[in-house]
Amino acid sequence: MFQLIKQDKSTKARLGRLTTAHGAVDSPFFMPVGTNGAVRSLSAENLLEFDTQIVLSNTYHLFLRPGLDVIGAAGGLHKFMSWDRPILTDSGGYQVFSLARLRKLTDEGVEFQSHHDGSTQFFTPEKVVDTQKILGSDIMMPLDECAPYPCDRSQAERSVLRTTLWARRSKKQYHAVLDRGRMQYLFGIVQGATYPDLRERSARELVGLDFDGYAIGGVSVGEPVPLMFETLDWVLPLLPEDKPRYFMGIGLPDQIVKAVGEGVDMFDTCVPTRYARHGSAFTRQGRVVVRNAQYIKDFGPLDDQCACRVCAKYTRSYIRHLFNSNEILGLKLITYHNVFFYVNLMKEIRAAIQGNTFDQFQKEFFGAYKSEFAAGESLAI
Amino acid sequence: MFQLIKQDKSTKARLGRLTTAHGAVDSPFFMPVGTNGAVRSLSAENLLEFDTQIVLSNTYHLFLRPGLDVIGAAGGLHKFMSWDRPILTDSGGYQVFSLARLRKLTDEGVEFQSHHDGSTQFFTPEKVVDTQKILGSDIMMPLDECAPYPCDRSQAERSVLRTTLWARRSKKQYHAVLDRGRMQYLFGIVQGATYPDLRERSARELVGLDFDGYAIGGVSVGEPVPLMFETLDWVLPLLPEDKPRYFMGIGLPDQIVKAVGEGVDMFDTCVPTRYARHGSAFTRQGRVVVRNAQYIKDFGPLDDQCACRVCAKYTRSYIRHLFNSNEILGLKLITYHNVFFYVNLMKEIRAAIQGNTFDQFQKEFFGAYKSEFAAGESLAI
Repeated sequence: MFQLIKQDKSTKARLGRLTTAHGAVDSPFFMPVGTNGAVRSLSAENLLEFDTQIVLSNTYHLFLRPGLDVIGAAGGLHKFMSWDRPILTDSGGYQVFSLARLRKLTDEGVEFQSHHDGSTQFFTPEKVVDTQKILGSDIMMPLDECAPYPCDRSQAERSVLRTTLWARRSKKQYHAVLDRGRMQYLFGIVQGATYPDLRERSARELVGLDFDGYAIGGVSVGEPVPLMFETLDWVLPLLPEDKPRYFMGIGLPDQIVKAVGEGVDMFDTCVPTRYARHGSAFTRQGRVVVRNAQYIKDFGPLDDQCACRVCAKYTRSYIRHLFNSNEILGLKLITYHNVFFYVNLMKEIRAAIQGNTFDQFQKEFFGAYKSEFAAGESLAI
Repeated sequence: MFQLIKQDKSTKARLGRLTTAHGAVDSPFFMPVGTNGAVRSLSAENLLEFDTQIVLSNTYHLFLRPGLDVIGAAGGLHKFMSWDRPILTDSGGYQVFSLARLRKLTDEGVEFQSHHDGSTQFFTPEKVVDTQKILGSDIMMPLDECAPYPCDRSQAERSVLRTTLWARRSKKQYHAVLDRGRMQYLFGIVQGATYPDLRERSARELVGLDFDGYAIGGVSVGEPVPLMFETLDWVLPLLPEDKPRYFMGIGLPDQIVKAVGEGVDMFDTCVPTRYARHGSAFTRQGRVVVRNAQYIKDFGPLDDQCACRVCAKYTRSYIRHLFNSNEILGLKLITYHNVFFYVNLMKEIRAAIQGNTFDQFQKEFFGAYKSEFAAGESLAI
């Protein structure tokens, strides 16, 4: 399933290819987030225009609305959202802890109230696998317990134990219900908060269960950025080389460039779409807040180094005006540019690894990019 | 400028072509409304995908935001919004009466407070021409006084007098400031509320001033639909055959099909975009409220007779889900379909007139279309 094509000589960056039932994805890659089965304001055609290879969607949201009944009747999530390339779905665990009103958390599973209608719902590891089977996800994530930050040691340890327990049950259910010959992958999610030994323990236990790939979860939950990156130092050396590594919910462009150099293969983040909603566009120099008054007569593109359709045609002045007039098109144009920026950044990263110039690429990138989260700062997005 | 290509034999429908500095427009035509310089959620590329030939934008809105300073610096509205086909701009008169807090209305002009920031502004016929010169509108509308419904005779008469006075001043200013060789047209707007003799008087006075085209204003302001159509009977016979006729702010699909048969050449309405915002899609059978629960598992397109990209790819079930999840993409997809529906309806109307089958086209259309505003009802949208 995952082919490690090349290991960079100067850094730990890797070039690979993940083959799924809905086509191949070149790694390292970024997955635009389509929470409700749509990447904020972008159509499937839009995503294909710049060759987006994979998207992420949220099990928790889709389970609650429109519900498995509807998606099942449509023939799965790909058909429902008219997207025939790969989809990774998360487990819903993170959303249960962050969005829902948590009712009861036991080893059996998690009882919660829907953030829509307050209805009581129950997720077990088995149910989450069953759900993603119906969704038809190319990559399924198992239910895990995501520890908060800060988190005391006993709570962190409990979340590691429970995550391993649930991972084992997920794996068992996966083998019990998955159709033979139907290619859906199941990953493991490493927890352990900010405790190196717990992270190591979690990693070892999950590797022992032999998943199709490994995610580092419970990061970007408010911890200082350097600590977030330390997690990679603790975990990555323990993961098998021939499996993809996924840094969940990361990150800003400079964080992605850094993490690739540490050996990460997969990323997802709502940064490009969420920042677009607030009128911010990404460029290789950093973030441009297009809403700002300084752009009122700026008739240049969002990013003069960008090859996207929005930058070819529309000006900062116009997009700023649309934003200030509450015209949805403004949001759409920035979102398009930002997602393009991320997808294209990954393309350039892959080309650099391929061409043995990733080390140089990193230097040039960090030289030009104005970082917003220097050492010690928390990534609170 | 306007070439009357064909007069239908069975109805009063006309086929024509309006040539502007930004290209030709085939009539009868519909202008999607881009109030703030954008047609709600649609990019210029989207509009070109289905060969939209012209859009309308609002002088009042653009004057207030981003302001003439910005649009002038951009090189005009076409460049500002990256649209190089024709643009008609209204005079702002209607918005001053409907949106702004009116401060003082005299023969000199109209003082009003911006609905954005309460700032005091003053529009005169001359200033409105100057404004549209800066915008670079292909078709300019003069400042007029739009009478409300109901409206007593003395008020209606005053609005006719003032509209003629302002039309004369607009024409004078137009000739004084317009660059030679720069093709911008100026239309007259017929007022007179629901009084046949006042409508006639207004039409005769404006025709005497020799405008490039004639609009029927002060309609679709709450009057019963049959009365709205009676206005055409009073006014159209008085207008020169070789000038385009514009029924302002009309209307629903069946109203457009009917008005074309009465000899109208130009339409604008925010119906397709506004109804989209409320989850309604137009079809040849009538309006479909996609938000309704009955479509939860409807995996057919919005309109199974439609050739648009949205109907080729997305289902009612998915679009309904996007709407209910407050995903902007849902709004975008319905808006795209609805504007396509209107633009395409006009194409089919023109083809029918061309092929001498418009009479038949009307019969089939009215046979299939479920009208929402039967005789006697007010068109309150």
